[in-house]
Amino acid sequence: MNTIADRNKDIAAAAAKLGKSTYNDSAYKKVPTERKLRQQESPKLATLEEAVRKSGLKDGMTISFHHHFRGGDKVVNMVVDKLAEMGFKDLHLAASSLSDVHAPLITHIKNGVITRISTSGLRGELAKEISHGLMKEPVVFRSHGGRGSAIATGDLHIDVAFLGAPSSDPLGNACGYSRSENAKSICGSLGYALPDARYADKVVIITDDLVPYPNTPNSISERDVDFVVVADSVGDSSKISSGAIRDTKNPRDILLAQQAAKVIINSGYFKDGFSIQTGSGGASLAAVKFLRESMIEKGIVADFALGGITAHMVKLHEEGLIKRLIDVQSFDKVAAESLKSNPMHKEVSANEYASADEPGSAVHYLDIVILSALEVDVNFNVNVLVGSDGIIRGAIGGHPDTAADSALSIIVCPLLRGRIPCVVDEVTTLITPGSSVDVIVTEYGIAVNPGRPELAETLKAAGLNIVDIHDLKNRAAATIGAADPLPFGDKVVGVVMNRDGSVMDVIRNIEE
Amino acid sequence: MNTIADRNKDIAAAAAKLGKSTYNDSAYKKVPTERKLRQQESPKLATLEEAVRKSGLKDGMTISFHHHFRGGDKVVNMVVDKLAEMGFKDLHLAASSLSDVHAPLITHIKNGVITRISTSGLRGELAKEISHGLMKEPVVFRSHGGRGSAIATGDLHIDVAFLGAPSSDPLGNACGYSRSENAKSICGSLGYALPDARYADKVVIITDDLVPYPNTPNSISERDVDFVVVADSVGDSSKISSGAIRDTKNPRDILLAQQAAKVIINSGYFKDGFSIQTGSGGASLAAVKFLRESMIEKGIVADFALGGITAHMVKLHEEGLIKRLIDVQSFDKVAAESLKSNPMHKEVSANEYASADEPGSAVHYLDIVILSALEVDVNFNVNVLVGSDGIIRGAIGGHPDTAADSALSIIVCPLLRGRIPCVVDEVTTLITPGSSVDVIVTEYGIAVNPGRPELAETLKAAGLNIVDIHDLKNRAAATIGAADPLPFGDKVVGVVMNRDGSVMDVIRNIEE
Repeated sequence: MNTIADRNKDIAAAAAKLGKSTYNDSAYKKVPTERKLRQQESPKLATLEEAVRKSGLKDGMTISFHHHFRGGDKVVNMVVDKLAEMGFKDLHLAASSLSDVHAPLITHIKNGVITRISTSGLRGELAKEISHGLMKEPVVFRSHGGRGSAIATGDLHIDVAFLGAPSSDPLGNACGYSRSENAKSICGSLGYALPDARYADKVVIITDDLVPYPNTPNSISERDVDFVVVADSVGDSSKISSGAIRDTKNPRDILLAQQAAKVIINSGYFKDGFSIQTGSGGASLAAVKFLRESMIEKGIVADFALGGITAHMVKLHEEGLIKRLIDVQSFDKVAAESLKSNPMHKEVSANEYASADEPGSAVHYLDIVILSALEVDVNFNVNVLVGSDGIIRGAIGGHPDTAADSALSIIVCPLLRGRIPCVVDEVTTLITPGSSVDVIVTEYGIAVNPGRPELAETLKAAGLNIVDIHDLKNRAAATIGAADPLPFGDKVVGVVMNRDGSVMDVIRNIEE
Repeated sequence: MNTIADRNKDIAAAAAKLGKSTYNDSAYKKVPTERKLRQQESPKLATLEEAVRKSGLKDGMTISFHHHFRGGDKVVNMVVDKLAEMGFKDLHLAASSLSDVHAPLITHIKNGVITRISTSGLRGELAKEISHGLMKEPVVFRSHGGRGSAIATGDLHIDVAFLGAPSSDPLGNACGYSRSENAKSICGSLGYALPDARYADKVVIITDDLVPYPNTPNSISERDVDFVVVADSVGDSSKISSGAIRDTKNPRDILLAQQAAKVIINSGYFKDGFSIQTGSGGASLAAVKFLRESMIEKGIVADFALGGITAHMVKLHEEGLIKRLIDVQSFDKVAAESLKSNPMHKEVSANEYASADEPGSAVHYLDIVILSALEVDVNFNVNVLVGSDGIIRGAIGGHPDTAADSALSIIVCPLLRGRIPCVVDEVTTLITPGSSVDVIVTEYGIAVNPGRPELAETLKAAGLNIVDIHDLKNRAAATIGAADPLPFGDKVVGVVMNRDGSVMDVIRNIEE
């Protein structure tokens, strides 16, 4: 009834209708090699130089990096050194953040290898040089949520992402820890690398522990990875908790932490099922210890802790005081190890963490956040980026994201740091608008945003020392005297983006 | 030195240069509501009808579904009933598969609500009617890997995906199981829903257990979800292992399973660190039991088992005989529960599982696969879709994907099923080309693809009964006699796509 010719005609007609070709069996050749041999010939394994060549990277393009190793990062310098050696020029370096360890970039900027930078923060010599006008183009600063959004919307288009990973298999299933015996590094969550992995045109995984396929559970999927490069070391894990993230022994920080804990406990938001995030300052981190005592005493269990996860948070989780940890960034090795072993310790991307344009991002469901500050002003605006000397020395991080979307945002900030007033008339640089800041805790009293009168009443009724923000500012000014205006020049060296993609402030160069 | 006017001018200039607006603080209003209250107002929560309206679904568009509940699925009928009630016409239904339970679609096809179908398989009344020419447009059949690729490349564009989930929070973090006390259903992996979640224009999660945010660990992320609909039931979990997936007590199946196990054990691929997948046939599933004994005896541990994961595989994993389970589809409740509790039991998407165009998909690293068949022919071609009566009664599944990419593909198939010969001259419908099939195991001997002479020698040397495929065919023909040609008509009712996106075969209508 049906001849083969009929059948072939039907197949050709169906293919034509669908705009497809017909199947050609002779194009297929089965290669019956066992997996372990095939794996050694992974088409993705390459040297760094090969990966760069094959990625199609060209002068003028955008390269990206994550900062999960913070002060211990080795990937940015390794890659940019290589790109310089290969003769690339005019690159846009888009990192989730940069720190002291990236001072070698100064040379690459001077040589024209890097001509633009996007980042959440800058520290050390690189920050100092840029503040003094090193670059022609201003650095673009974004919050972590803002960066996630900018990448997802295409506002920040990444041509090639170079993502360090403590483990990867030859196909690119990569992870912020390793389960192998040869593990060299650990950074925990790769949350800030996930937007890059998903949206960059080409993705290069750089790992110091190539493990057999399948590297699972994994964080980045092979499907988002184009090349896998093996390196001696991608980061020094002992320095994960360096920089902004340190356990404090400073008595003033401990006092501030105690006060912040009291604000939380008496705020009305401290009840069974609450959620909390703590920023990277010493006082902010220490506040968790005080909360713990109160949680045990009152029998309160938190639904989740969000954000940079710390050893303190892990302890509370393992004690059953916090049900889930939602981790965009592991702030120390204990947290990184916990991500590896605790099933309710969950990694999220920067987008899932803090995007303003995603109604489901975690910050929208955050009750309480404790954050630090370099400066606050009488309008509750916060600066966490530029020092009182006008030099960049910090990072936006998730500060404006969490302040805006939490139910209760608490800034802990000393009134003075040495001879520097921290409560001022107007912040040097606007990072988190006062409209999203609820409470400022200083060692001389607690100021509540006038937009939250009910909160001020509640805290006053609980016996806390509620003061006017102007009184704090005046007290600081009276102690120190009027500060000289900073010697800013006319050049814009930094642009601060709001998390919604608008321009919020600029940073001018500072003169010697 | 710097006036506010200067600063505002700099900000405006920076914004203009970046093509951005300047930040407008008055547009922002902090809403300090605690999380639990905010969550009840999730902008994504909707009734099914609201979700459909808001999704922008229009006549002629493509809707999609997964089949993780198999015979217990309640989502396809629920949604299509609603769409019919709302007056939609001319929709393209793109499911990962369809089964007996979807017979109500017949009415919707007759009424013009559904005019096109894409699926991996069809069974029961719906399949019968379609085989008899119910639809104007032929059904497009794809393998699981082929569907993943088609969705990722845009070949199969999904306008609105309706994805059933045993748990979801109000933001759309959804999962194939639930950790709450109110859990109503469980299906385990949502692997076939993940391409839809990632690539569909709009994604509607339908859940029968709305849990508090955050539902974590989760499978589908809130960032891919537009609407969350609560339903009484999304599926009957007791029917997950219905249809093709049943534990066999059939002595012939057990014999076939033993033979298949012997092929594996003597193939040269059975050594420490091997990887394996078993298809959904009874014999294929039973073979695992026999392998287990040999693994224990020889001290062999598998690196991973892939694919549809079964209770047998879970047992071996929990005994330490299989290091990792890579699960695109949980074949029974034990497997679904294991995904929930075993950290090395990993969910993968259809793309990560079996895409031909992704060098890192798991099938590329598969050593051994055991598959079933409705028919095989003397060229080792396999048919798993159309019965010997010409009626569609199966599913392509991952059959061609795993056969092509494994090092050793074994088909278990009885010589006869009742009066029906299963080894024939030419398969009724070509699903898996012989070029990717290595061994065919029947109860009357084992045929090895002539393209693998070394394998035939190895198995012969091990004392297995290696026979010529033509002898098997002749034996079947001699027992049964020549079959009448099937009464196919002239209408093309199905088109079989190869996993590379080309058209491989067509299915004609069968006359009464």
